[in-house]
Amino acid sequence: MDSNLPPEKPRALALLTDFGLADAFVGEMKGVIHGIAPDARVIDLAHGVRAGAVREGAWVLSRAFDAFPPGTVFCAVVDPGVGGDRRGLVLEAGGYHFVGPDNGLLAAAAERAAAGREIRAVEIALRELDRRRRGTTFDGRDLFAPTAARLAAGLALAQVGPELEDWISLAPFRPEAVGADWEVEIVTSDRFGNLVTVAAEAFLRETFGEDWRGIRVRAGGREIEGVRFAYEEAAEGDLLLSIGGGGSLEISANRGSARKLLRIGPGDRVLLRPPAA
Amino acid sequence: MDSNLPPEKPRALALLTDFGLADAFVGEMKGVIHGIAPDARVIDLAHGVRAGAVREGAWVLSRAFDAFPPGTVFCAVVDPGVGGDRRGLVLEAGGYHFVGPDNGLLAAAAERAAAGREIRAVEIALRELDRRRRGTTFDGRDLFAPTAARLAAGLALAQVGPELEDWISLAPFRPEAVGADWEVEIVTSDRFGNLVTVAAEAFLRETFGEDWRGIRVRAGGREIEGVRFAYEEAAEGDLLLSIGGGGSLEISANRGSARKLLRIGPGDRVLLRPPAA
Amino acid sequence: MDSNLPPEKPRALALLTDFGLADAFVGEMKGVIHGIAPDARVIDLAHGVRAGAVREGAWVLSRAFDAFPPGTVFCAVVDPGVGGDRRGLVLEAGGYHFVGPDNGLLAAAAERAAAGREIRAVEIALRELDRRRRGTTFDGRDLFAPTAARLAAGLALAQVGPELEDWISLAPFRPEAVGADWEVEIVTSDRFGNLVTVAAEAFLRETFGEDWRGIRVRAGGREIEGVRFAYEEAAEGDLLLSIGGGGSLEISANRGSARKLLRIGPGDRVLLRPPAA
Repeated sequence: MDSNLPPEKPRALALLTDFGLADAFVGEMKGVIHGIAPDARVIDLAHGVRAGAVREGAWVLSRAFDAFPPGTVFCAVVDPGVGGDRRGLVLEAGGYHFVGPDNGLLAAAAERAAAGREIRAVEIALRELDRRRRGTTFDGRDLFAPTAARLAAGLALAQVGPELEDWISLAPFRPEAVGADWEVEIVTSDRFGNLVTVAAEAFLRETFGEDWRGIRVRAGGREIEGVRFAYEEAAEGDLLLSIGGGGSLEISANRGSARKLLRIGPGDRVLLRPPAA
Repeated sequence: MDSNLPPEKPRALALLTDFGLADAFVGEMKGVIHGIAPDARVIDLAHGVRAGAVREGAWVLSRAFDAFPPGTVFCAVVDPGVGGDRRGLVLEAGGYHFVGPDNGLLAAAAERAAAGREIRAVEIALRELDRRRRGTTFDGRDLFAPTAARLAAGLALAQVGPELEDWISLAPFRPEAVGADWEVEIVTSDRFGNLVTVAAEAFLRETFGEDWRGIRVRAGGREIEGVRFAYEEAAEGDLLLSIGGGGSLEISANRGSARKLLRIGPGDRVLLRPPAA
Repeated sequence: MDSNLPPEKPRALALLTDFGLADAFVGEMKGVIHGIAPDARVIDLAHGVRAGAVREGAWVLSRAFDAFPPGTVFCAVVDPGVGGDRRGLVLEAGGYHFVGPDNGLLAAAAERAAAGREIRAVEIALRELDRRRRGTTFDGRDLFAPTAARLAAGLALAQVGPELEDWISLAPFRPEAVGADWEVEIVTSDRFGNLVTVAAEAFLRETFGEDWRGIRVRAGGREIEGVRFAYEEAAEGDLLLSIGGGGSLEISANRGSARKLLRIGPGDRVLLRPPAA
């Protein structure tokens, strides 16, 4: 079943879910993976995606996957449709594999990984996976983890199942023009209360030119001006803008929580305005 | 000290505790394990068992261990009696080792692993473990982790300590007949608010026959009828029954939390009724 | 770049942060580490340090590092000054490496590891780290993780950057005399609500002699007398003193939370009194 050319370095198999780490869900997935691919390096990417928040999971995966080297297999499970008829999917692009439900979770990451080149897609149809299922609501353990483990152990993509021509994509992660301004989605928020927006640094540079750091954001009745390099550039408790680790605009508070100060969060929109003349 | 026949594959050493992952407890256990068995694959099974909830931990371990291949060593610590005179225990069954306090945490898993065959039991009496203890309240690090690591590194069970003829078991995980109905314990609840009961699918099939999916549950003043395959079979926010990943009956809400809707949780009981005639 | 003598055993690379595990921060750090040092054993020491709590992180690191064998590389990130001009630091002592911001987080651990012998210090100045940075607020991924990974892969300390003669240390972790009594800082609290103080067992033995277990603590309007071995020595819900896993005095409640009972926490101080005459 496995390739004749085992990878020289142990392969990373990274997990992203909305399962949290309190329960045994992720642990059981790792048990299954260990049984199939004991040499893989299994790495938790993130498990705190809000329950059922496919769009948030898609964003996190698309902004974080490239911290891992090509060759990494991602097993991503945010899957409110589990047990129904949504397909199991593998996308391959730029040397990465993305395994998970065909509900939009994987597409944005694969598009970034492809960078304009080909994305290969297959529907998961591994016959041996039908044997030990218990219940119908844990495809993370029963379908996606074993598929990802087999890929990490060297299984060729074509052996996973039939090729697909299409798969589900979500609305793109980008600001929308509103007159001279832009409406910007907050797509996730982190432990520190930073509000992460879909406005990528590249978008800001293209749209606002070399003065882009002078942009203004209206959010929760407040206006925040200027993109900073360090939280400490704002007074303690004050709001500021920065480019976060994912490469997009964030609203933060120095030693405080922008989420709590502004009482907004994922799904809300803020107004992005050009630098003052 | 180690066996002459090292395992060909790296061995899994899985951890289940009520320590959470915010503090350094689990990390210190892993540090100790690394010093003893650097080739073991250390895997977090679950660390969110409610503090001191031995029964919940026993359930989770007993339903999740078999996601791991035989040969896996489980180190389980839910141990409110730490520092007192409860014994340290290793149970071996079905090719698995279970290491932890003798307070009932390990027995149900070992019984399922044994599947009617022998369970071997020893009391932990490794003399070298006395050397570096600091404090008296962290046997997870000072007693159970080093024992599990030595077993993962190949130590024979007989070298861990004297054999035991008996060990502590908890009340069995099964429904209790009440007239024509059954009282069913909710034994744990997960991040999604699913309420996990002790009514195994096998019990339901044996008790209610081929129409078992028509069962009814009374809980929190509501009646829920019919075991579904997918959460989406209920309307958004509505309650439903399913067989969860652990193979037992669960009460859920589609894109909602059954725990919040019904205001019940672990330790509570619900009424299970046969299919309507 | 790497040493000519690769370590015979896989090296541990342990992570301590205030990032939590819900977001992708820690996962991205591990992705970067995997790309550089795929054979390292990456271990989570703790990620639940309170946001920005450098002093708490310094304590946890200093009390937990020695659960790991010498040779371990620690990557510690509690870094409210990220993006500003604080330096990146590596301390080497007692066979351990400590990598992180120069804000006091690393010093106490290095001092304990050194045990009176030399501490070597360098400022992180790895030129190749400038290439792929995205944003300015995630040095955990962009600076500290790659440095730690290179050290784990065998890079010599001198190649990390120029030697330093000084680095930032925090106020020492020890009680302060107040007449015949001592004021003792609570420095962290754990999942169980145990209140961990800076009063090390060694301090108690030196200060109070062989009767040290008779000490009394005044906290939140209550007096607690006597250091116990097991939580169960107190009645259920009652307060007690013990020596915790870190080797210092803790205030606990048997099957309860001292933090909730006393309504005090990290940063608060309690009064330590000698044994009653």
